[in-house]
Amino acid sequence: MFQRIDEFHDWWNQQQQAHPFHVTPAPLDQLTGWSADQDTGVIRHRSGRFFSVEGLEVSTDHGFVEEWSQPIIDQPESGILGILVKRVRGVPYFLMQAKAEPGNVNVIQLSPTVQATKSNYSRVHQGKSVPYLEHFLAPRRGRILSDVLQSEQGAWFLHKRNRNMIIEIDEDVDALDGFCWLSREQLSELFAVDNLVNMDSRTVLAGYPLPGTSAGTHNDTASLLSWFTEAKSRYRLDRRRIPLNAVKKWIWSPDGIRHEDDKYFSVIGVDVVAGNREVAGWSQPLLAPKHRGLVALLVRRVDGQLQVLMRALTQAGTLDVVEIGPTVQCAPGNHADTEPQPAFLDHVLTAPKERLLFDTVHSEEGGRFYHAENRYVVVDTGDQLPDDVGHDFTWMTLPQLAELARYSNHVNVEARNVLACLIFQPSER
Amino acid sequence: MFQRIDEFHDWWNQQQQAHPFHVTPAPLDQLTGWSADQDTGVIRHRSGRFFSVEGLEVSTDHGFVEEWSQPIIDQPESGILGILVKRVRGVPYFLMQAKAEPGNVNVIQLSPTVQATKSNYSRVHQGKSVPYLEHFLAPRRGRILSDVLQSEQGAWFLHKRNRNMIIEIDEDVDALDGFCWLSREQLSELFAVDNLVNMDSRTVLAGYPLPGTSAGTHNDTASLLSWFTEAKSRYRLDRRRIPLNAVKKWIWSPDGIRHEDDKYFSVIGVDVVAGNREVAGWSQPLLAPKHRGLVALLVRRVDGQLQVLMRALTQAGTLDVVEIGPTVQCAPGNHADTEPQPAFLDHVLTAPKERLLFDTVHSEEGGRFYHAENRYVVVDTGDQLPDDVGHDFTWMTLPQLAELARYSNHVNVEARNVLACLIFQPSER
Repeated sequence: MFQRIDEFHDWWNQQQQAHPFHVTPAPLDQLTGWSADQDTGVIRHRSGRFFSVEGLEVSTDHGFVEEWSQPIIDQPESGILGILVKRVRGVPYFLMQAKAEPGNVNVIQLSPTVQATKSNYSRVHQGKSVPYLEHFLAPRRGRILSDVLQSEQGAWFLHKRNRNMIIEIDEDVDALDGFCWLSREQLSELFAVDNLVNMDSRTVLAGYPLPGTSAGTHNDTASLLSWFTEAKSRYRLDRRRIPLNAVKKWIWSPDGIRHEDDKYFSVIGVDVVAGNREVAGWSQPLLAPKHRGLVALLVRRVDGQLQVLMRALTQAGTLDVVEIGPTVQCAPGNHADTEPQPAFLDHVLTAPKERLLFDTVHSEEGGRFYHAENRYVVVDTGDQLPDDVGHDFTWMTLPQLAELARYSNHVNVEARNVLACLIFQPSER
Repeated sequence: MFQRIDEFHDWWNQQQQAHPFHVTPAPLDQLTGWSADQDTGVIRHRSGRFFSVEGLEVSTDHGFVEEWSQPIIDQPESGILGILVKRVRGVPYFLMQAKAEPGNVNVIQLSPTVQATKSNYSRVHQGKSVPYLEHFLAPRRGRILSDVLQSEQGAWFLHKRNRNMIIEIDEDVDALDGFCWLSREQLSELFAVDNLVNMDSRTVLAGYPLPGTSAGTHNDTASLLSWFTEAKSRYRLDRRRIPLNAVKKWIWSPDGIRHEDDKYFSVIGVDVVAGNREVAGWSQPLLAPKHRGLVALLVRRVDGQLQVLMRALTQAGTLDVVEIGPTVQCAPGNHADTEPQPAFLDHVLTAPKERLLFDTVHSEEGGRFYHAENRYVVVDTGDQLPDDVGHDFTWMTLPQLAELARYSNHVNVEARNVLACLIFQPSER
């Protein structure tokens, strides 16, 4: 354990040295172990596992665009994202890991104790065993603080979910090489550092219990659940898998698959040489967003209590029509030349600095996405905004959001990530 | 409103007279408005709406049988099942309806205020308007007590859901002809009458708030949600739609489609002549179970609090691998000659009469199922059963079960129905 945060940063620099990791672009159709189906273009691993890149045709009456087709990552098997917690003299400590991923802007980021797909721990790629996994598989000795199947990026994944777990243990557990114990306070400090706490850590930590709060009366919750049910009933989301080579407006080239408007994302290939991963080298496709994204939450205080403005959002890969997203979730670059602009985007971009309660750039999953960054912003709106913000939006308290996040497929990954930023904000402790 | 329950029964007898309703068997391939696809055998309405009877191939590692194919009802559009509540001098009254359905054993049963598919209220069959519907469509004046998309019979429906709503109003609303206001006490009494309170009423009433109870601490709920997550992660459920005429072991005849072992159910056709329905006559397919089913809940008391034994259950039509079912849910007749017998079935069938807290036969939805009856039983097990009942089962309190039932696709329809029996049991008030 680190006495001061400087000691963490020293350790972190050592870890960066200890992770020799070279990522080079490679033609998408010549990745070792991967091949594109001759008829459909679908990109799969020869083992049939990990993930595939497929085509999807989408039709919905929710949002700006009614019909489109796109490449999408299909990863039916869910893995475990797990964090071990231990209290020392009442202070919670979290066991975190320095983990390199090919898509990271900075090679290593701070990852959960365990971040493993079933392929990982059932040894598809003949790798090393997964440390600490035994704490997350039944029967467990620890106390379960959180355990829920959570969705991931609906714009890029079809129905992807991972099992998010936080397990509190009483016994002493040593930090192996590449792992460290961080106090809650230290983690809070690191949450404010750009591109350090990775996506998997953030989504898991969104399940960490808020201290001594109540999610409101039965009636409050009934109204909130009804707003969600109403959105699910109001909108339609139809999907059809199509051949990857049949997605309209997307162009194949030796560099990958890109949109004809040079927007959204492209699918690229990389070769990876790693020093301390389960396997020493591999190739894989990655999804590379074209623009940096924005994940923003507008908040206000009513009778001293923080309320957050949430949105019912439909994306290509959403399992059940809508999930609850942050106020704004978009890549402004994709909307530069379009009208109308995303709701409340202007509020966020023109907010004065002193209104920003949080403003940090974080990365999305580097195992699947290449240099995918989002600016996470929380904006205090004072009393500017009305109660009635249109039927796609609703105000709720932070404990209510946290309560909804305990149930699968209710709160999307972007909203959970910004929730984690708030749970671990020093001023909210 | 009725002063005494006798007055209800008099009114009910009048309603029975007022619902001339004739149901006659008809060849499945000659139903007016319906046709079987020449290639696939799939049975659809010519409007493309209502529902279709399709073929499904199922593969799972959860349960006795690993692979089978079966006919299944596909009804993608969800409707509204809604009940209006009004308090008079503190006592809640429920607006209920006498409604005839072709599959009912007794023509009319007590139905929700509103029981309407989107086809109903968007007039696919050019029927009358739906009374009281305005209370359930946004914007509403009433208070929302419950509003959730709930699954229906997973053995017979593929992903079917209805929106279950309870709305409490303050203003006076008259009961139209065919409707009546019933107090909570009166409803409780009618819950104990065989085949009276219909399935739609029971599933909606399962959302009626339990008085002044708490669903337990954060840790209790965390363990419970983890048990559910564990079950979803442990098991696999793969489905593939197949032509209806390709389901193995099912036999087509002029009388319909039946299983070669004369088990499970058959798909039959009926012609209906009705006096007071939206349309005066129609034909439709119905699913006719072969045997009466059993829906049983084992309960115990720990420190004076009721605990119910729930089961993680996978069925052909389950949306997300498992839902939470009652302790026992089966048709014993289907298992007469098989080993092993369903878990805890013997406990239920051999329970002495004085251990039965509830024992009533109720019908399943008569608009889709023909004479589908289940015996609903609640058995007090005293202290016979251990805490550890195997990983497919868990004990929970009644408020915990009610809390889980507020979220879509958590508690299945059979479990919600027996929950409603308990919420409305006189002794539990």
